[in-house]
Amino acid sequence: MAGAASEQERSPESQAVRGARRGLLLVLSSPSGAGKTTLARRLLAADPSLRMSVSVTTRPPRPGEVDGRDYRFIDPAEFARLQAAGELLEWAEVHGNLYATPEAAVLEALKAGLDVLFDIDWQGAQQIRERMGQDVVSVFILPPDGQTLERRLRERAQDSEDVVQRRMAAAATEIGHWGEYDYVIVNADLQTSFSGLAAILAAERLKRVRQPDLPDFVRAVLAGL
Amino acid sequence: MAGAASEQERSPESQAVRGARRGLLLVLSSPSGAGKTTLARRLLAADPSLRMSVSVTTRPPRPGEVDGRDYRFIDPAEFARLQAAGELLEWAEVHGNLYATPEAAVLEALKAGLDVLFDIDWQGAQQIRERMGQDVVSVFILPPDGQTLERRLRERAQDSEDVVQRRMAAAATEIGHWGEYDYVIVNADLQTSFSGLAAILAAERLKRVRQPDLPDFVRAVLAGL
Repeated sequence: MAGAASEQERSPESQAVRGARRGLLLVLSSPSGAGKTTLARRLLAADPSLRMSVSVTTRPPRPGEVDGRDYRFIDPAEFARLQAAGELLEWAEVHGNLYATPEAAVLEALKAGLDVLFDIDWQGAQQIRERMGQDVVSVFILPPDGQTLERRLRERAQDSEDVVQRRMAAAATEIGHWGEYDYVIVNADLQTSFSGLAAILAAERLKRVRQPDLPDFVRAVLAGL
Repeated sequence: MAGAASEQERSPESQAVRGARRGLLLVLSSPSGAGKTTLARRLLAADPSLRMSVSVTTRPPRPGEVDGRDYRFIDPAEFARLQAAGELLEWAEVHGNLYATPEAAVLEALKAGLDVLFDIDWQGAQQIRERMGQDVVSVFILPPDGQTLERRLRERAQDSEDVVQRRMAAAATEIGHWGEYDYVIVNADLQTSFSGLAAILAAERLKRVRQPDLPDFVRAVLAGL
């Protein structure tokens, strides 16, 4: 305890300096129409340390979708190649189309001290949890009630009743997996839900296990006492 | 899936309604002088669902301390009685004085759907974790460096060097337990630390396991689809 020494006199060893954080994988799942995409976009816009994970898919682009932003659109042969090479963090088949998350971009972002946001379904969430363990934080977004969800699914898709029914069945299946997630947000009010989601990200970054620099930091604090 | 039915026509069984939340115990520990008390006061002022746990102690009140607000000041006989009756959630002896948290007030607050904030040391935190398990969320506040902590301990106490040295030794011991906490905040900037602490509380409330009404809620959502 060297109370009289000025900071200039101290050796660099006793300076408490923060090191790199351990990046996390923030997984968002929900049935379509529960507001997940809006929440994800807002969070990305608000947080410069968060990157969106761009999935690959074999389905054709929908109107307005941009290759490399919404998805990377690839053909089934390329998908099979990535899969065989073990380069996919998770993959799933939905309505006959293949979707996956290539691992490389995610690991690169984590290495750079960034967090990565995933907008994926329960199948993808399960696989990412298995492969990435404690680095995964998963959040399930629930609609405020069934009627609202159904209305949104009907408004959104100017589709046949057949397609709407298929979407509702898929929504019910997705909702059935809410119990596998760390956090659950009932999206009754978008601003409240967004605050909650932002709080989850902020809090998870403060978890002791996500601050691998703390042992050295504490050593320096004690040395400076 | 009854898309055409209005909300009025639905039976109350299919209405998705939120039930009571499961209260949590937010434990804050830190060495004296790291800013814990200021952070605790701000959080209490900002959050109407959070109650401060008032400890009992056998030490005499310090100038400005109010009985029932800062502590409940009791004599050693009363302390022994509470202890023998198993009414203490945790207790510790610090510098020859006894401190404890009576269990009844805490359980009452939790039952009322409130969260309870604890400003206690590592000994108390260990005991509360043992007794209350998953309901405990623990946060350790670290000073930005040793010099700042030492300066705060010296400024704060117009005391003899002896007392200052004893406080610094106690601070070092307390800091040694940072690794037992769920979250760690390095208090370099009070506003940033406060935001982090508020985020931890907000996020923990959104943990799936703290929302025991979700199974019923999800059942009603699915019924309304």
